[in-house]
Amino acid sequence: MTDKILTGDRPTGQLHLGHYVGSLRARVELQNQHPQTILIADMQGLTDNGHNPAKVAENILNVLADYLAVGIDPQRTTLCLQSGLPALAELTQFYANLVTVSRLERNPTVKAEIASKEFGASIPAGFLTYPISQAADITAFRATLVPVGDDQLPMIEQTNEVVRKVNNVAGQELLVECRALIGKASRLPGVDGKAKMSKSLGNALVLGASEKDISKAVKKMYTDPGHLRIEDPGKVEGNVVFTYLDAFHPDEALVAGLKEHYQRGGLGDGQVKKVLEECLQELLAPIRERRERFIADKGELMRILQAGTQAAREETGVVLQDLKKAFGLPIL
Amino acid sequence: MTDKILTGDRPTGQLHLGHYVGSLRARVELQNQHPQTILIADMQGLTDNGHNPAKVAENILNVLADYLAVGIDPQRTTLCLQSGLPALAELTQFYANLVTVSRLERNPTVKAEIASKEFGASIPAGFLTYPISQAADITAFRATLVPVGDDQLPMIEQTNEVVRKVNNVAGQELLVECRALIGKASRLPGVDGKAKMSKSLGNALVLGASEKDISKAVKKMYTDPGHLRIEDPGKVEGNVVFTYLDAFHPDEALVAGLKEHYQRGGLGDGQVKKVLEECLQELLAPIRERRERFIADKGELMRILQAGTQAAREETGVVLQDLKKAFGLPIL
Repeated sequence: MTDKILTGDRPTGQLHLGHYVGSLRARVELQNQHPQTILIADMQGLTDNGHNPAKVAENILNVLADYLAVGIDPQRTTLCLQSGLPALAELTQFYANLVTVSRLERNPTVKAEIASKEFGASIPAGFLTYPISQAADITAFRATLVPVGDDQLPMIEQTNEVVRKVNNVAGQELLVECRALIGKASRLPGVDGKAKMSKSLGNALVLGASEKDISKAVKKMYTDPGHLRIEDPGKVEGNVVFTYLDAFHPDEALVAGLKEHYQRGGLGDGQVKKVLEECLQELLAPIRERRERFIADKGELMRILQAGTQAAREETGVVLQDLKKAFGLPIL
Repeated sequence: MTDKILTGDRPTGQLHLGHYVGSLRARVELQNQHPQTILIADMQGLTDNGHNPAKVAENILNVLADYLAVGIDPQRTTLCLQSGLPALAELTQFYANLVTVSRLERNPTVKAEIASKEFGASIPAGFLTYPISQAADITAFRATLVPVGDDQLPMIEQTNEVVRKVNNVAGQELLVECRALIGKASRLPGVDGKAKMSKSLGNALVLGASEKDISKAVKKMYTDPGHLRIEDPGKVEGNVVFTYLDAFHPDEALVAGLKEHYQRGGLGDGQVKKVLEECLQELLAPIRERRERFIADKGELMRILQAGTQAAREETGVVLQDLKKAFGLPIL
């Protein structure tokens, strides 16, 4: 049996080049190889934006437009909205009785995220328990393959623990375990050279960026601070311009040549940046154009989201029904 | 505007005389005065029976039959099943983002319950968070009056905290606060004289008890251990037989006379027990008969549960939709 893929994003901002390299590009390929569901995870987005639902709500159609713009095809990929799928909340509630509070507190991903956010002693219950909700997402779609970064491996482990516990209580192989699909792509640094591109860090280039934004971003891009004169040898490692060329430029030989020249000396940052800018302009122009077309037709976006969510509602409803039957509960 | 009542029971066993005195009797009256919803709280029952769903599942129709047997009328009271109401799980998930883990850990009712159960370090996440789920139950029905024991007051407080937080985020009076309705009835002790009648303590007399069960229970009932000879004065305080006569005998003057005689001396336990047994047989015979009729027709029970749950599904769905609209989320 072919693997079933579940993936998704929290709609807390427009998607950017980091998403493109880290996941979107792969999804466009994967949809030709596997059944694939992409969840716009608004409920998860609310777990740490509980006091600001507008931030999440406003970005649902932004993210959907980003998906469509990069070439995710609603005929091949089920695009759906988490808050439109009651079975996910219901399964979460069933699973929550089989996961202990201390197990959640030991989840390394959650621990790291709690440390990095500014919750202090005020961790929302929904945030602590979101791994249970993720287990519901994955199992409700009977997903077997979940594309994640390696920092998310504890989530897969916790999901499979839930699967085994539920199956044990149900006395049958009700839910299926999943595997992580670790992407080949390394994480794209921000334009400022920081390890992670992130909208909240202000170092992101969004997929809908204008020609001018792209140009500005490349101009201020972090290079080799020791490369003061053109004739000096420059460093390629940690030089964001080259990292981006590696990530985006279709002509590997050309990039290799530029690197060699830069390291030898005699190649100015401006020239390398010009090559990168052209490449990014070329990559993003059709994405921006498609994105603008979709964003201009909210009705069509809503129809796509509605259709995908309806299909997902039926699919996830079956798993919920199966669980209720296995637990002896009436289907009303 | 008249108050709307929400109440319910966890279906973890048949209902007994303790429920009758503590809540059922009042509900039969209240259904003539207020819109009333009674929730068979199977999802809550699972929060500490996660590994044994059969215990909960098997008792759903038992509890429903108990309700009908004591005179709760599905034409006046909405009788519904918690697991059949997805909006409750969905609202729980929204609210969970506005309640901190430490606030839950400070909830006195939850603290006491965790101490009394044998979770050890293994508190299920669903158990810690069940006050959020109760807030969802209450607010989803826009209930303003919630009959509770005084040990449950912290639950009402926590619910109203959620109401204020949600309304604050929504920027409108979306949810309504509720008040506790503290019953006049004091808690019925077990037949063994222990403070609480409870099926798991083995000191309960269930509503469906047979004539023989009632007779046996009364015979072994705790009286005054110092009352050795009939002619000795006996104690009425802590004497379960008199507590039950107070709770159930319709003729207060007769009970007062018996007490006086018992305290004076010359009235044997056997004679008092005979009066109590007659009274309990009379009370429970029609309840048992009705109960048996209902239990024999599972199809009819399911139709009643289905109809009530369907009505409740519509009612609670409206509140969920209102919240989504207020939060700016699409209704798909």
